[in-house]
Amino acid sequence: MSDFRQQALDYHEFPVAGKTAVKLTKPAQTSHDLSLAYSPGVAEPVREIAADPDNAYRYTNKGNTVAVISNGTAILGLGNLGPLASKPVMEGKALLFKRFAGIDSIDLEVKHRTSEEFIQTVEAISDSFGGINLEDIKAPECFEIERELISRCNVPVFHDDQHGTAIVTAAGIINALEIQGKKIEESIFVCMGAGAAAIACMTMIVKCGALRENVYMLDRQGVLHTRREEINEYKALFANNTDKRTLQDVITGADVFLGLSGADLLKEEDIALMAENPVVFACSNPDPEIKPELAHATRTDLIMGTGRSDYPNQVNNVLCFPFIFRGALDVRASCINDEMKIAAVRAIADLAKEPVPAEVLAAYPDVDSLEFGPGYVLPKPMDPRLLPNVARAVSQAAIDSGVASIDTLPQDYEI
Amino acid sequence: MSDFRQQALDYHEFPVAGKTAVKLTKPAQTSHDLSLAYSPGVAEPVREIAADPDNAYRYTNKGNTVAVISNGTAILGLGNLGPLASKPVMEGKALLFKRFAGIDSIDLEVKHRTSEEFIQTVEAISDSFGGINLEDIKAPECFEIERELISRCNVPVFHDDQHGTAIVTAAGIINALEIQGKKIEESIFVCMGAGAAAIACMTMIVKCGALRENVYMLDRQGVLHTRREEINEYKALFANNTDKRTLQDVITGADVFLGLSGADLLKEEDIALMAENPVVFACSNPDPEIKPELAHATRTDLIMGTGRSDYPNQVNNVLCFPFIFRGALDVRASCINDEMKIAAVRAIADLAKEPVPAEVLAAYPDVDSLEFGPGYVLPKPMDPRLLPNVARAVSQAAIDSGVASIDTLPQDYEI
Repeated sequence: MSDFRQQALDYHEFPVAGKTAVKLTKPAQTSHDLSLAYSPGVAEPVREIAADPDNAYRYTNKGNTVAVISNGTAILGLGNLGPLASKPVMEGKALLFKRFAGIDSIDLEVKHRTSEEFIQTVEAISDSFGGINLEDIKAPECFEIERELISRCNVPVFHDDQHGTAIVTAAGIINALEIQGKKIEESIFVCMGAGAAAIACMTMIVKCGALRENVYMLDRQGVLHTRREEINEYKALFANNTDKRTLQDVITGADVFLGLSGADLLKEEDIALMAENPVVFACSNPDPEIKPELAHATRTDLIMGTGRSDYPNQVNNVLCFPFIFRGALDVRASCINDEMKIAAVRAIADLAKEPVPAEVLAAYPDVDSLEFGPGYVLPKPMDPRLLPNVARAVSQAAIDSGVASIDTLPQDYEI
Repeated sequence: MSDFRQQALDYHEFPVAGKTAVKLTKPAQTSHDLSLAYSPGVAEPVREIAADPDNAYRYTNKGNTVAVISNGTAILGLGNLGPLASKPVMEGKALLFKRFAGIDSIDLEVKHRTSEEFIQTVEAISDSFGGINLEDIKAPECFEIERELISRCNVPVFHDDQHGTAIVTAAGIINALEIQGKKIEESIFVCMGAGAAAIACMTMIVKCGALRENVYMLDRQGVLHTRREEINEYKALFANNTDKRTLQDVITGADVFLGLSGADLLKEEDIALMAENPVVFACSNPDPEIKPELAHATRTDLIMGTGRSDYPNQVNNVLCFPFIFRGALDVRASCINDEMKIAAVRAIADLAKEPVPAEVLAAYPDVDSLEFGPGYVLPKPMDPRLLPNVARAVSQAAIDSGVASIDTLPQDYEI
């Protein structure tokens, strides 16, 4: 067994199984403590919540709790391994929520026979939480599931594999285009892969200013175009009225390539066809569509991003999801709308342009410098400014777009 | 607002809302930590669990996590106030699980239209946990709900309002009968109230040796008897073939009265009719069926218990539920069966006969002594011996009855 594999298993097993636990936030030592925490004292907050459901935010942990929920149908890059096998990932997400944004997060693994059963289950428990983060649910079911849950639940519902990925990807691409001297509304985009994350990324890119007709998306059968009749309604949104059919057809002259497909599917000869000063985000994990070394050797005018932490410009959802939920929870937003998502894109992109504090550099001893440029278009996960910057921008967008219940921002964002 | 009311609300609101939060049990500071906790390292335990579901106990928090689940249809003595209003109680239960047995407990409040929807919801999420504690669900639905969930879930399911109450009540009554010099199999029982807890208590008393035909149960319409046709199948189990119709009819000569009904429903003249050396557990909360002062003034030969912490012999579920789950989790029992419940009864009853350590006395400064006798038939909640004694007995019973997956007991029971 490899060292890393054994380390990962040991990390999960010792000294206690798993990664998260429960702690008490109130004294519970004396009989008097317990008479407040439970019967008879607990009857008081019960009555207050029965009188006004909003009091749940005052007297329970609801307002700082996010459920991380999966059915295990698309676990990481491993596929459909069932709900229980997804538990380490969901606990991992809970760990990241706490670590980066101080959010108490509960993992729930749901078994079901139909999407409707999954939806009903999540809806039934949704009021227990301040928000719901859906995770590792396969496409196309994830679209219907998210849409229905958003409509049926009283709290924000966010499918991170779609929107977290889209927000961070858009932030990186926007900065890369700026460095390359290109305007988003004039750029040509090619997206290899047409799954949930890919569709969400291209949707976000369009919301951030790209022209819909400048976006070409490919699945395993090639370019999505309007004469393909077998594609689902979600892919159909990106079917172009075009005679282009192959990757070579669409990548010729393209400004941006986004890969959310598979290892080594992008060749040197493909990127040679791109426009000058191109942007290549090869985000297949763990192995990108093209190795950065190979891409840079082919084109020196390229800005490259991947999903990996051991190369520059890592597209990592952790730059977004803890903070978009922090921002939503802080003003008790009823949803996470486009305005909030775009605010997150801008805040993440803007942070990469700020000088990096010494403590961030110290967290990345292998990195020489972190200065806005081709090798640094996205902030690093360990940057403590992500919390206040992104959360505040998201909260403000919620207030401005009329979905917040609280119209003041927190004084500070200590975890 | 009363002082206590305000104290209870303040306790729940400040300095943070609610009573429980999430903590991390693994390091999560460096990039390396995070590469083990999440992608790419987390793929290793995912694969192990996909290969063998039992590995979830090894690599996730499942084995130490109990869900406390309610639909809010019977909250404390307050009635059907809906799921969200039950949240402070469920969080309170989670606090008690952690405080007394080191169990990580998640509260879930479920909305539904039918019992079947509730059952499906809980079943769908049940694999996320090591056990399920049902709470504050009204009768008679709670019987069907528990029965179905026990049959459909892979982890122990326990409705504490029924069985926790029954176990502690049985332990107290058994000790009281012993002190009064009575044999359980010769004693006559009267139970006022025929709800879920009452039926569970009498079922447990019978399992502990009482004769079924010596148990008389009353609902608002009077004694349950075989000619009553309107009663549900659960009450029908305690319908006697008798001409007795009233409380006075059945309490005459009775050895034990158990009240799970309402305040002040038992009169001095009623207890005057009981046999010599009677046992009266008046457990209506917060106001018992008869005030202890009044009962003792009427009969000096009486042993009295209540649900209140400010009188001797408090029947308090916290004497049982943290430890019965601890015992079940420790040996990964597939259920909580009768053998385990009876083992809990015996362990709780036996503990009351042991000399009390100084630290327990110190926790009850208002109490003069805690010596087995009419004023001390049940251990005190703050007794730290409950954890090892009850958990060990329950684990052993699980092993002996063939429902445990692990056949060794923990070395110690530190929280």
